[in-house]
Amino acid sequence: MKVAILAPVAWRSPPRHYGPWEQMASNVAEGLVALGVDVTLFATADSATAGTLAAVVAQGYEEDRTQDAKVLECLHISHLMERAGEFDVIHNHFDFLPLTYSRLIPTPMVTTIHGFSSARILPVYEKYAATTAYVSISHADRSPRLPYVATVYNGLRLPDFPFTAQPDDYLLFFGRIHPDKGTAEAIQIARQSHKRLLIAGIVQDAAYFRERVEPLLSEDVVFLGPAGPAQRQQLLGQALALLHPIGFDEPFGLSVAEAQLCGTPVIAFARGAMPELIQSGRTGFLVDTVGQAVEAVQQVGQLSRGACREWAAANFSQQKMAADYLAVYQRIVRH
Amino acid sequence: MKVAILAPVAWRSPPRHYGPWEQMASNVAEGLVALGVDVTLFATADSATAGTLAAVVAQGYEEDRTQDAKVLECLHISHLMERAGEFDVIHNHFDFLPLTYSRLIPTPMVTTIHGFSSARILPVYEKYAATTAYVSISHADRSPRLPYVATVYNGLRLPDFPFTAQPDDYLLFFGRIHPDKGTAEAIQIARQSHKRLLIAGIVQDAAYFRERVEPLLSEDVVFLGPAGPAQRQQLLGQALALLHPIGFDEPFGLSVAEAQLCGTPVIAFARGAMPELIQSGRTGFLVDTVGQAVEAVQQVGQLSRGACREWAAANFSQQKMAADYLAVYQRIVRH
Repeated sequence: MKVAILAPVAWRSPPRHYGPWEQMASNVAEGLVALGVDVTLFATADSATAGTLAAVVAQGYEEDRTQDAKVLECLHISHLMERAGEFDVIHNHFDFLPLTYSRLIPTPMVTTIHGFSSARILPVYEKYAATTAYVSISHADRSPRLPYVATVYNGLRLPDFPFTAQPDDYLLFFGRIHPDKGTAEAIQIARQSHKRLLIAGIVQDAAYFRERVEPLLSEDVVFLGPAGPAQRQQLLGQALALLHPIGFDEPFGLSVAEAQLCGTPVIAFARGAMPELIQSGRTGFLVDTVGQAVEAVQQVGQLSRGACREWAAANFSQQKMAADYLAVYQRIVRH
Repeated sequence: MKVAILAPVAWRSPPRHYGPWEQMASNVAEGLVALGVDVTLFATADSATAGTLAAVVAQGYEEDRTQDAKVLECLHISHLMERAGEFDVIHNHFDFLPLTYSRLIPTPMVTTIHGFSSARILPVYEKYAATTAYVSISHADRSPRLPYVATVYNGLRLPDFPFTAQPDDYLLFFGRIHPDKGTAEAIQIARQSHKRLLIAGIVQDAAYFRERVEPLLSEDVVFLGPAGPAQRQQLLGQALALLHPIGFDEPFGLSVAEAQLCGTPVIAFARGAMPELIQSGRTGFLVDTVGQAVEAVQQVGQLSRGACREWAAANFSQQKMAADYLAVYQRIVRH
């Protein structure tokens, strides 16, 4: 089977630092190559793949801000569309714009909806619901207004998240500093548990950081700033537990899967995709309040870190994701 | 011949107030209908045409700012592209994005380049140079990097600009208040000519207005603010001359054509499309300096207002524009 993977061109694929959609497009492409699939990755020219790279955009528009994003986007998308006849299936990771070319080409298209930036983009998905196959990244993230052919969870590269059998004694908050992610609640949980808390992430909401986080920093509540790949694996792996007391219905939650891959259980508020990502009582705890989270911290040391690793490796690996997508392609192409 | 006209969807077609690209798309469509052509105008649903209206966008994104412009654009463009097989030719007034669908459809496309918002959009035009026919709105506005099949001047509705044989004694500045349009130079010319100056237009550059225009306002230099259609025809028609001392290479200059249609000669700096729009010494004067413009004001009363009208009606009418475009379509379709 000849597969074209359409990555966004905000960043290169895989991204050097940030770029979750590019990361997943890359993980799918490399996972399919490992399965023996003939993969062409449409991405920026500075991207890397074990398959074939197809590129007309030299560098991502977020990496060279002098460029016109709309120009790059439409040149990149049309480059693939004009070559559509070469492929058995096109797998779109590039939001809604590619959909609007899909009825003009002979090749079936699978679109992973990585997120809805706004309800205003739904009409495009609705228009193309009959002619493209939508994949959700969790059951929780499905729009009731759209049909889906499958849910395929985000898959991670196992070597990036090695198992750590023996943790340190700290709790970890890992993510954007923003009310959505519950940084302030994580501090409450840690203080009431008399545990050390490490906080890693970019400050997305400066007022929230200033008012709700910064005044509570101490020897036991430490803000580390953003963490790169090497520090990330160490922080995640050596934590007693990841605290994830989110304030919104999170569509997935990469750090939740990453922590478990390292063997670290997760204590999360039971919203969004959390019930799909965590086996409560086995690989972490789903709770509704800070008080319940404090109780969970007392029990978290009894969970098997090996079970966390096994669960995450079975469900959130690059290999599993690639195999699931290959099954989707086979269903689509057969039609 | 079945023609699809693709208008932008920032405003309705024709626009209620502002919207020059929508105005020209509408003028082409209505002019073609008058020539007996089967025209479908792809525009906002609140648009008006004597042909067939095709619309999926209820209202322009500039008229209802709660909408996502990119969503409206791609739904609007793909609506036409998916119906491309119904038409002999598609005439694109919608900038570069529609070009990127053009190789996926069987119908030839003519694209009027109404302006380059930035040099960064040129790569899209270059990519599609071999497969779409570009029309410039003046010889002066041509990019040396692109091939063109024709220049077709903007065409105006003659009833909107009635001839005025006997003018008043004022000079007129008509356009955006901006250094590009030379408001300050127009004031100098009027003062040195001891003539009254009326200034009509939106303030686009507030600092320029505050520093270079406002301090010079007086009983003889009057700022009127923006003028609607009714006031516009009166202001243009009753002026002794329109002053157009531009500071940039203007691609066309609608007010220059409009003034002449009303019988009013134009004194302009000889830049951009001005040598194409004005017959110097007959329908106005092309000059290079404020001093030369002052000399021109002394002579402008001797020009025949009838000659201005005739020249503009022959070259810048809706009828002429529609006939010119029909000839372009016939050349393209025959290929």
